[in-house]
Amino acid sequence: MMDINKVTPIEKLKHINEYWNPHIAGELNGQYVKLAKLKGEFVWHKHDDEDELFYVLSGKLVIELRDKNMVIEEGEYVIIPRGVEHKPVAEEEVHVMLFEPKSTLNTGDVENELTRKNLNNI
Amino acid sequence: MMDINKVTPIEKLKHINEYWNPHIAGELNGQYVKLAKLKGEFVWHKHDDEDELFYVLSGKLVIELRDKNMVIEEGEYVIIPRGVEHKPVAEEEVHVMLFEPKSTLNTGDVENELTRKNLNNI
Repeated sequence: MMDINKVTPIEKLKHINEYWNPHIAGELNGQYVKLAKLKGEFVWHKHDDEDELFYVLSGKLVIELRDKNMVIEEGEYVIIPRGVEHKPVAEEEVHVMLFEPKSTLNTGDVENELTRKNLNNI
Repeated sequence: MMDINKVTPIEKLKHINEYWNPHIAGELNGQYVKLAKLKGEFVWHKHDDEDELFYVLSGKLVIELRDKNMVIEEGEYVIIPRGVEHKPVAEEEVHVMLFEPKSTLNTGDVENELTRKNLNNI
């Protein structure tokens, strides 16, 4: 039987030393579970073909949409549907768990210095 | 623009009054986010075509596999790959968030009094 083990995000996150660099912490049904530390302002972007879930593990994450801002606090989540422009902002450090298709690029339709390809497992 | 709102699981769970009856609390990429309260022993089962993620929001969830038991505590998760027999057990009440394909039946390849079809949204 394949090895099945539980994951403790709070432990995994101790090994992440860069903001806005998601690490892969699980795979299921063509989707990845990713863990990331966020701080500062990300870039406006959208994902043309992927819906994206942000679950906040700690801190307070602002998701700016074109028509409103949302504040996602610890233990809450939001699903950003494909095609919707959004900009994550973390005034203080935020820890998040993401669920999204394996094909998802962090900066979506934008490519700049924040873009991360070839993500690491953690 | 479609209405996009954050979800607060702890609030949603207040409206769930039955154990082992998952409620739909989000949809993305052909998957559902489900919330459930668990207490007692579930049934041994497997999902032939679906990987299943259990994220523990509160309490202590035991997942029995045929070759070991795992204890998943608050803030931890486990992914049970398709085809793997498992039995969730909650000695005390446990609150979980599930991620799994929309096609997933809670009792998998077994159908009994615990089977829940036509899940409610919450």
